[in-house]
Amino acid sequence: MNQPGQSVTGDPGLQEIDTIAEQLRLNRNDYEPYGRYKAKLVHGLAERLNDRSQAKYIGVTAINPTPLGEGKTVTAIGLAMALSQLGHTTIGTLREPSLAPVFGIKGGGAGGGKCTLEPQADINLHFTGDMHAVTAATNLLASIIDNHLKRKKSPQINPATITWKRVLDLCDRGLAHVITGLDQVPQAPLRETGFELSAASEVMAILALATDLADLRQRLGRIVVGMTYEKQPVTVEMLGCVGAMAALLVDALRPNLVQSCEQTPFLVHTGPFGNIAHGNSSIVADKIAVRLADYVVTESGFGADCGAEKFFDIKCRSSGLKPDAEVLVCTARALKLQSGLFEVHPGKPLPAALLEENLDAIRAGAVNLKAHLDIICQYGLPTVVAINAFPDDSQKELAEIQQIALEQGASAAVVTDAFARGGQGSIALAEAVVKAAGKPNQFQYLYPLEMSIADKIKTIATKIYGAAAVEYDPKAQRQIQEYEQLGYGRLPVCVAKTQYSLSHDPKLLGRPQGFTFPVRDLKLSAGAGFLYALCGEIRTMPGLPSEPAALRIDIDEQGKITGLQ
Amino acid sequence: MNQPGQSVTGDPGLQEIDTIAEQLRLNRNDYEPYGRYKAKLVHGLAERLNDRSQAKYIGVTAINPTPLGEGKTVTAIGLAMALSQLGHTTIGTLREPSLAPVFGIKGGGAGGGKCTLEPQADINLHFTGDMHAVTAATNLLASIIDNHLKRKKSPQINPATITWKRVLDLCDRGLAHVITGLDQVPQAPLRETGFELSAASEVMAILALATDLADLRQRLGRIVVGMTYEKQPVTVEMLGCVGAMAALLVDALRPNLVQSCEQTPFLVHTGPFGNIAHGNSSIVADKIAVRLADYVVTESGFGADCGAEKFFDIKCRSSGLKPDAEVLVCTARALKLQSGLFEVHPGKPLPAALLEENLDAIRAGAVNLKAHLDIICQYGLPTVVAINAFPDDSQKELAEIQQIALEQGASAAVVTDAFARGGQGSIALAEAVVKAAGKPNQFQYLYPLEMSIADKIKTIATKIYGAAAVEYDPKAQRQIQEYEQLGYGRLPVCVAKTQYSLSHDPKLLGRPQGFTFPVRDLKLSAGAGFLYALCGEIRTMPGLPSEPAALRIDIDEQGKITGLQ
Repeated sequence: MNQPGQSVTGDPGLQEIDTIAEQLRLNRNDYEPYGRYKAKLVHGLAERLNDRSQAKYIGVTAINPTPLGEGKTVTAIGLAMALSQLGHTTIGTLREPSLAPVFGIKGGGAGGGKCTLEPQADINLHFTGDMHAVTAATNLLASIIDNHLKRKKSPQINPATITWKRVLDLCDRGLAHVITGLDQVPQAPLRETGFELSAASEVMAILALATDLADLRQRLGRIVVGMTYEKQPVTVEMLGCVGAMAALLVDALRPNLVQSCEQTPFLVHTGPFGNIAHGNSSIVADKIAVRLADYVVTESGFGADCGAEKFFDIKCRSSGLKPDAEVLVCTARALKLQSGLFEVHPGKPLPAALLEENLDAIRAGAVNLKAHLDIICQYGLPTVVAINAFPDDSQKELAEIQQIALEQGASAAVVTDAFARGGQGSIALAEAVVKAAGKPNQFQYLYPLEMSIADKIKTIATKIYGAAAVEYDPKAQRQIQEYEQLGYGRLPVCVAKTQYSLSHDPKLLGRPQGFTFPVRDLKLSAGAGFLYALCGEIRTMPGLPSEPAALRIDIDEQGKITGLQ
Repeated sequence: MNQPGQSVTGDPGLQEIDTIAEQLRLNRNDYEPYGRYKAKLVHGLAERLNDRSQAKYIGVTAINPTPLGEGKTVTAIGLAMALSQLGHTTIGTLREPSLAPVFGIKGGGAGGGKCTLEPQADINLHFTGDMHAVTAATNLLASIIDNHLKRKKSPQINPATITWKRVLDLCDRGLAHVITGLDQVPQAPLRETGFELSAASEVMAILALATDLADLRQRLGRIVVGMTYEKQPVTVEMLGCVGAMAALLVDALRPNLVQSCEQTPFLVHTGPFGNIAHGNSSIVADKIAVRLADYVVTESGFGADCGAEKFFDIKCRSSGLKPDAEVLVCTARALKLQSGLFEVHPGKPLPAALLEENLDAIRAGAVNLKAHLDIICQYGLPTVVAINAFPDDSQKELAEIQQIALEQGASAAVVTDAFARGGQGSIALAEAVVKAAGKPNQFQYLYPLEMSIADKIKTIATKIYGAAAVEYDPKAQRQIQEYEQLGYGRLPVCVAKTQYSLSHDPKLLGRPQGFTFPVRDLKLSAGAGFLYALCGEIRTMPGLPSEPAALRIDIDEQGKITGLQ
C-alpha cells in the first residue's frame, strides 16, 4: 500500500504528509508520520494552538437518506476542496470507515469520484489502527467482567444485568447472539451474550466525545457494565481496568491527518454509529482543526433528524464549539423518491420513471427537504442547500429545488457536481457557505439538560421528527424511572431510530405527521455521556450479503489492493 | 507514546528510525516510518538487496524452560548488542509480543533489564497493527464460512467438519467454547465453535512462513477450513475470499524495524505459537536481515526440542537459509530445577535451598543441557552455551556448567550478564559466536519430507525427545491415513507438546528416557504448510489470572503508559 497516487482517482499527485503538516504551520513535534501519507497528531495540540484564531465551523448534513445515496461525504470533501481553491485554509473532519461495510455490502468509505480521501486503501482498511484499539479495549473489559464474575470479586455483579458486549469490526451474523463459557475447561461463566460491531461500541462513542486524555480516562471509568444484586451500577472504575483500557486507546485518541485527492488536509478520526451513538467524528480532531484553519467542514451521519441533531445537542454541547452554518445535501432523484411515487430496490436497476423529468414528484418529495430546513432553523443556524447534481439530471428539476429551498428559508441553494469535477464543481457552494457563515447567528441547543428524560424525548420527537405524541413500552418507562433515580437524568438523549424516515417507520417517506413515536427501551451509555432510546429495530451486528464485497477484493503482485470500490 | 526514551531502561538515547535505516544502508524508499521510532520495510526488499553479501545466521534457543525464566530473549538482545559493540553490523530478528500475556499473567515481551526493544510500550501494545490484521483476516474467513453455509453455496461444507475458529488477541476463557448463531434474527448457522488467541491462528503461522506476497496469497488459498459431504477438503481458494484476506495482510507481511536500548537494529515481526505452530519470527524479516548485516541473531520459542527443531525443520526448510551456529541459553538455577530436587510455584518465593550452592544438583540437572546439546549436534551445527548469570549465582556452579558443556561437545560455554550490563555483559558470548560461526558446518534437516507421517513423528520423538516408542490414539491413526490419502503426507510435522519437558509430560524433568510418546490427534495447517500432532493438552484460549496484569496498567497525564512490566 501507500505508493504515491496508488488509489487516486482525481489529481494523482499526493503530497507527503510532512508537506501537508507544514502547510498547516505544524512543527515536527506536533505529529508523527504513519507511512509517508498519514500522520497522527500529538496529545495536547489544541491547547498548544490556543492563541490562534478560530475557524468558521461548518456542518454537513442531508435529507433522509435513500438507497440511491445522496453523496453527503463527497459533498463535504468537495466543499473543503472548493474552500481551499478559494484561498481559505480548510480542514475537513470526517469519520473513519469501518471494515464491516468494506467487506460486506457497501464498499469503501473514503469518498468517490473526484472527491476522495487518500491513501484510500489504507483509510478503508486498518488505517492507523484506531478501530482495532477500540475492539481490543472493549473486549478486554468483557474478559475482565467474566473473570470478575468467575472469581466472585467485589462488587458482585448480577450476571443477568450485564449489558457489556464484545465487538468485532466485521459483519458476522453468527456472533450477534452467542453462548459463552461452554465446557468446563477452561471454566468460565456460562452466559448468553453477543457481539456488536466495533463502531457500535460505547468505547467508540467515548473516543469520539472525549476532549482529552484525562477526559477519556474519566469517561471509561464511568461506563456501567451491569448492576449489583442491590441494583447499584457497577462501573469500570470499580473493576479496576480503566487504566488498561486507556492504555489501549492512548494513540487512538490522536486524530489522523490525511489529504484529499486535491491535497486538502483532512482529519479522519473515530467512527461511532449514527443511531445508538451520535454518529459524528471526534471532538479532539475538531478542536485542533478550528485552530489550524480558516474553515472546518465536518459531516454528521444520516439526515438532519439524526446526525445533525446529535451534532448540535450532544457533540457541540460536549466540545463547546458552535457551528457557523449548516450545509444540507439533497439530490433530485432522492427528493423524487421521497414523494413516495417510486420504488427502488438495492442491486436492481432504477425505475425508468424515476429518471424522467417530473416536477410534481420533486414538489411532493420536497416536503422532506423543508422538514430538514425547519430542523436546522430551530438551532438558529443559516442553512445552505447543496443540490448534488448527476450528469443527466433535469435542469428544470434542479431549478425547482433551488426555488423551494429559498422559499423555505435556506440562505442559499446551490447546485454542485463535485463527484465529476472535484473542488471546481463546488465553488458556488463554497462561496455561499462563506457568505452564510460570515453572518452572526443565534445557535442554541434544542433542549436544556435539566429537562426530564421524557421531556427531552418528547421535544426531539415532536420538534425534530414531527410526531404528535410519544408512547413508551413499559420497559422504557421503568428505565426512565431507574436512570433518573440513579442520577443519570441530566444526560442528553440519543435517539436510535431508522435513518430512512423522519419518523420511526422506514416506510413513511416525505414529511410524516400526526404519528405517535414509540419508545421501546432506554439504555445508558454513562461513559459516552448519553442515554439512548431504542425506537424500532437497530441491528448492531449485521450479516454478510449473499455476494459479499470481500469476494471482489484482491491484491496484485506489488500488494496494490483492487476491488475496494 | 513514542516520546524518545520514554520506556528506555538502559541507555536513554534512542535514534530516530531514519538514522537506524540509514546505518543499514537502506534508502528512503525501502521503508516507511510509523511514528519516529518504528518503520515498516517495503515489499520486495530481499530481492533488491540480493547482491549484498550474506550475514552469518545465528539461532538462539534454550534448555527446557522453567517457571524461573532463562532469559532467552534478553540473551538474544544482549548478543546482538555485543556483536554490534565488536564492530559487526548486526540485526536481531524476534517475534512480536501478543496483547494476551501483556494483560494476563506475563507482562510485556520486549526484553528486560538493560536488554530491551524500544519503544517498549508500542511494541507491547498495538505496535504496527500486525496482530490486529491477523485477527481481522482470520475472523473474516470465519464469517465467510458461515455465510457460505447459510446460503448453501458450492462446494457445500459439512458443518461438522469445520475446523476454522475465530480469534482474539486477548485471554478470554469464556470464548474458548461458544455456540454461535442463536436466535433467528439475524439468522445464522447454529454451531458449536470457539475462539483461539490470534497468535495461535494458522494465519499467523502463514504470515511467519510466507516468503513474499505471492507466496502469502497461495498459502492463504490452500487453507483447509473443513470437508465436503464427500470428504474432500474445502479450501479458502474455493470460498473466494483469498484476495480479501491477503488485502488485510499486505502491510502485516512487511517486517517492523525498531532498535534496542543500545540502538542495535531489530526486525520484530510475526509471533506464531510455539506448540501448535512453529514458534519462530518471520522468514521475510530474516531474508532481508541477512542482506543488511554481518550477523543476524534470531530466537526460537521454548527449548531446542520445540523452537529450534521447528526452526531447522520447518522455518529454515521453507526459507532456504542455513544457520551458522546455535546459542543454547541456560541458567544455574534452571539446571538445578531440572534435577528434580526442588519445587517452585509461580508467585511464591523461591525455596532457599535452590539458591544455595549445590554442585550435585547442577550435575544432576545438566542432563537436560546435554540433551539439548545432542539435539543441536544432530543438525550438524556448532553450539555456544550461554550461561545467563544472576547477581548472586555461585561461581563454582557456573564453572561446573561450563565444564560439562564443553565435555558434551559445545564449541564454547560462556557466562553472560546482559540483563545487568547490556551488550557489554555479552562480549565474551559474542566472541565465541563469531568463532563458532566462522567454521564450516554440516547443517542438515532431521528428516526428509518424503518420509511417511508416522516415520517423521517417530524420528522427532526418538531422536529429539528421547522417546523409546510412539503410540497413537485411533483418531490420530485415522488422521494420518486420511492426510496421506489427500496428498498432505509430504508436509513437515510440527509437534504440539509441553515445553516444560523433553517428553510429553511436564513433570518429567531432566532427560527422561524409555517413555512412550503418545499422539492424541493430528491436524492440518495446509496453508502454513505443516501437519501438527497434538500430544497432551494445548490451550489456545487461556483465561485471565486472578489478578490480571491489566489491573496494574495505567496512563499518566501525558499518555505515558505505566505498569507494563
